Amino acid sequence: MEISVGISNHHVHLTKEDLDILFGTKLEVRNELKQPGQFASNQVVTVVGPKGELKNLRVLGPVRAYTQVEVSKTDCYKLGINAPIRDSGDLEGASVLKIIGPKGEVEKSCGIIATRHIHLTLEMKKEKGLENLDEVSVKIPGPKGGILNHVHLKVSNEAYFEMHLDTDDGNAFLLKNDDIVEIIK
Amino acid sequence: MEISVGISNHHVHLTKEDLDILFGTKLEVRNELKQPGQFASNQVVTVVGPKGELKNLRVLGPVRAYTQVEVSKTDCYKLGINAPIRDSGDLEGASVLKIIGPKGEVEKSCGIIATRHIHLTLEMKKEKGLENLDEVSVKIPGPKGGILNHVHLKVSNEAYFEMHLDTDDGNAFLLKNDDIVEIIK
Repeated sequence: MEISVGISNHHVHLTKEDLDILFGTKLEVRNELKQPGQFASNQVVTVVGPKGELKNLRVLGPVRAYTQVEVSKTDCYKLGINAPIRDSGDLEGASVLKIIGPKGEVEKSCGIIATRHIHLTLEMKKEKGLENLDEVSVKIPGPKGGILNHVHLKVSNEAYFEMHLDTDDGNAFLLKNDDIVEIIK
Repeated sequence: MEISVGISNHHVHLTKEDLDILFGTKLEVRNELKQPGQFASNQVVTVVGPKGELKNLRVLGPVRAYTQVEVSKTDCYKLGINAPIRDSGDLEGASVLKIIGPKGEVEKSCGIIATRHIHLTLEMKKEKGLENLDEVSVKIPGPKGGILNHVHLKVSNEAYFEMHLDTDDGNAFLLKNDDIVEIIK
C-alpha cells in the first residue's frame, strides 16, 4: 500500500492565551497545509533551551488547546534538551522551553519530538484494512533506505492520507515532500 | 549478531598536498579514534558550497591519497549541494566544495555522503559468517526504531568492529556512540 511523504520542519502550536501574550493578534494565514483546516501562519517565534536557541520557528494554525513545540533530535542537541517522543497533544514529560514572540514570552513544558504518524479518517482506516492497527511500518527505497517502525495511525474526522516525518527521518532516508513509499502492515 | 554504533560528525580527509596548501604544517593528533591508526587532529577547516558554509569541520588523520569532505544530507541543504552517497574514497560525481584553512584554500570535487558501513577485518568477516556479503541490514530498537539497509562491510587489514553512521541516521534513530544494535544478514 502506497503513501506520500510530508516532511515537518520544527514548528509551534499555540493556545489562544499564549498567542495573545506572544503576538497580541490573530494568526494570519500564510499558506494552507494539506491537512484540512490547518495552515502555516505568518507568525514566527524564537525558542530557547538551556544550551541554545532556534529562531524563526513557524506557528501553525488554528490555535489549539495546548502550546507545543515540535523539534527534531538534532534541534534537541542545539537547545540542550532531551525531549520525549510523543504523539501531538501528549505533553507528559515534555521539555521546558521559553518561547519568545514580538510582544511577550512564555516558558512551559511544551517541547516534544513528534512520533512518526499517518493522517487518515476512520473510513480510510477501514477501506485500507488497517482498522485493527494503531501503528504500521513503512519501507523506504534508495541507497540509504530501510524500514521505519512505529508509524502511528492518527485518526481525524477529516484527513489527507499522508505520512508525516521530522527532518531527521526525512534527511536520514533522503526523502522529499510527496515522495511515495510503501506501508507494511 | 550485535555491533556497537559510532556516529560520525561531518569531517574532512586531506592529501599531503592539500594539507600543505591549507595549513603548511603536519596534522597534530588531538585524540585517537577507535579504528587503528586513525585520529582526530587539532586542525579544522571551513567548507563552502553554493548556498552556505560549515565552520570547524575537523580534519581526520593520517593524510590520505584523496581529499574528501563527508557531510550529512542536512549539511547538503545548508551548503546547497546534492552530494552523492559513496563509499569513502569513491569520489565519482562528488560535489564541488571550497575548503578554507588558515594558510590557503582549495576547491575540488570532494563532497560525499558516506554510505552506512561496518569496519571489520577479513578474519572477522569469516568468523562472523559474513564472508559472502558486501552489505547487511541493521535493526534499531526504540520509539523511533526500524531497520537500516545497505550497511556496507568495509574490510581493512586492521579494524575495530563497529558500525559508522552519519548524524542524520544517528539522530533519526535516537542513537548515541557505543549503543549496541543487531545485524540482520
